[in-house]
Amino acid sequence: MTDFCLHFRHQSVLVTGGFGFLGSNLARRLADLGARVTVLDSLIPAYGGNRFNLNGYEDRIHVNIADMRDQHGLNRLVQGQAYIFNLAGQTSHLDSMQDPFTDLDINCRSQLHLLEACRQHNPTVRIVHASTRQAYGKPRYLPVDERHPLSPVDINGIHKQAGDWYQTLYHRIYGLRTTSLRLTNSYGPRMRVADGRQTFVGLWLRQLVQGREILVYGDGRQKRDLNYVDDVVEAILLVATTPATEGEIYNLGGHEVISLLELARLLIKLNGEGSCRLVPFPPERKAIDIGDYYADYSKLQSATGWKPRVTLREGFARTLDYYRQHGSQYW
Amino acid sequence: MTDFCLHFRHQSVLVTGGFGFLGSNLARRLADLGARVTVLDSLIPAYGGNRFNLNGYEDRIHVNIADMRDQHGLNRLVQGQAYIFNLAGQTSHLDSMQDPFTDLDINCRSQLHLLEACRQHNPTVRIVHASTRQAYGKPRYLPVDERHPLSPVDINGIHKQAGDWYQTLYHRIYGLRTTSLRLTNSYGPRMRVADGRQTFVGLWLRQLVQGREILVYGDGRQKRDLNYVDDVVEAILLVATTPATEGEIYNLGGHEVISLLELARLLIKLNGEGSCRLVPFPPERKAIDIGDYYADYSKLQSATGWKPRVTLREGFARTLDYYRQHGSQYW
Repeated sequence: MTDFCLHFRHQSVLVTGGFGFLGSNLARRLADLGARVTVLDSLIPAYGGNRFNLNGYEDRIHVNIADMRDQHGLNRLVQGQAYIFNLAGQTSHLDSMQDPFTDLDINCRSQLHLLEACRQHNPTVRIVHASTRQAYGKPRYLPVDERHPLSPVDINGIHKQAGDWYQTLYHRIYGLRTTSLRLTNSYGPRMRVADGRQTFVGLWLRQLVQGREILVYGDGRQKRDLNYVDDVVEAILLVATTPATEGEIYNLGGHEVISLLELARLLIKLNGEGSCRLVPFPPERKAIDIGDYYADYSKLQSATGWKPRVTLREGFARTLDYYRQHGSQYW
Repeated sequence: MTDFCLHFRHQSVLVTGGFGFLGSNLARRLADLGARVTVLDSLIPAYGGNRFNLNGYEDRIHVNIADMRDQHGLNRLVQGQAYIFNLAGQTSHLDSMQDPFTDLDINCRSQLHLLEACRQHNPTVRIVHASTRQAYGKPRYLPVDERHPLSPVDINGIHKQAGDWYQTLYHRIYGLRTTSLRLTNSYGPRMRVADGRQTFVGLWLRQLVQGREILVYGDGRQKRDLNYVDDVVEAILLVATTPATEGEIYNLGGHEVISLLELARLLIKLNGEGSCRLVPFPPERKAIDIGDYYADYSKLQSATGWKPRVTLREGFARTLDYYRQHGSQYW
């Protein structure tokens, strides 16, 4: 792993969505690196934020409960920060279809709040923004690189892409130092696993640890790549410390492409027991399913040297361990 | 011109932005075709709506002053309509940069209001949505077809593209019968010419008719295509009556590509007098300028037979006549 000590030691950093899956793993890492971490989170039920995610770091991380929709609060919170890691968001595709207005407020309006706050109150802050592969929609070719046509298949994808464009625009017009990362499926300790809102993987982990059958939609042949959370955190920190990435958008991706059925079987094997079953797609999920997806992450690799290091086998073994130990905090 | 009488006679139609440039020309045409026209407009100053635009049609067009941001009003207004022509919007690129939140509310949130209202209260209505070439940003090749990468250069372009995607999504997921048209520069009688908010052409027409010098930004070599408003109205009506266009996005475009300096000279010639001068780009305009642009409209032509019929010479002669006669209503 790269040594980031010199970069973040004594630096003030703000992590939005810092009680969430990625946010909490990042905040803990930054605190370990000696940064002065403030976590911003609304702790909206079902959005992924969990107080237990910062367990053990209570005296090293400053917590500010607030909603990104609170424009006035953001104007204050961005001041004095050297880095902003912008991980807050509404991430459920299904919820975005059932309530497009809330998704709009969180994934568009609040992103404008943050960028406007930085433009007016902290124009030199370094920003890393978490985006999603969802902007691409159903892949027209594989692996998907950053030149792939944009064709989001749900409200969440539309709004997250607007968020990406805001970042690029505020860089180009106002010189804000911002980078967007289009994440693929991420997994690891501290993800919300109560249901399939954030990703199917979370639900599978819960089903497995609780001794229930894993349900795989369709024929299970859909291909995916996945990133272990430590690799995602590494990418975020590398980007933040690489000036050449400012104004750019990068894919993350995994080097092990796996079908969903193969993944279910791997999890069962790592768990030592369990079972899975193919079931038909629920229609509301089928309508927004993207089929096979895996990313070309060579642009990020060229710019920063990043590549995923944790294998699926190793990453899921660690993740299963975590939920066997702490599962009661998550379901 | 195509004979639309059978399609629109006695049909209930709603035109959003119906006091505006395109909306009023369309509403007048529909009234002439025997449709029962309701016009929805907020008449926000500076947005293009002008009561004089429906002059002479007061007893044939029903006017409903309301804002698209009024979700409850829309739920009522969409009911019973056979067609909705959705032309309301915030169209100023500069204003969108200065107040991105208002642009978001009008060009994103209100579009969701309309689509949700239709989904819940009138799912079989035929919708035509006015979008913009701005989604493409700076052209990477010319002419620009619908496969051109999307890369909007300002907030307005980002939000209008989100609006396009909403249309496509609500067609695919909910079966709404909607089509988006990506307009290029449109011109003709009833456009707002008080300033350059809607398009530079409006301001030029005012300057010319008022005996003032036309100011052309940069070297004047930027190429553009333009559509006369009657051709735009024709495209909208053709699309509305062609079921195969549902769920699709089409470019409009002109067949006469002209540089801005050539256009200024043409206007001066048609006017019989006047002058123009090259001036440096104001920086806030240069930042969002897209350079040369002209569209490939062959997809629309294949689907509907549409092509622009009014030459620049003829269209601008008619337009200048209009403003010489009615200019005082517009400045």
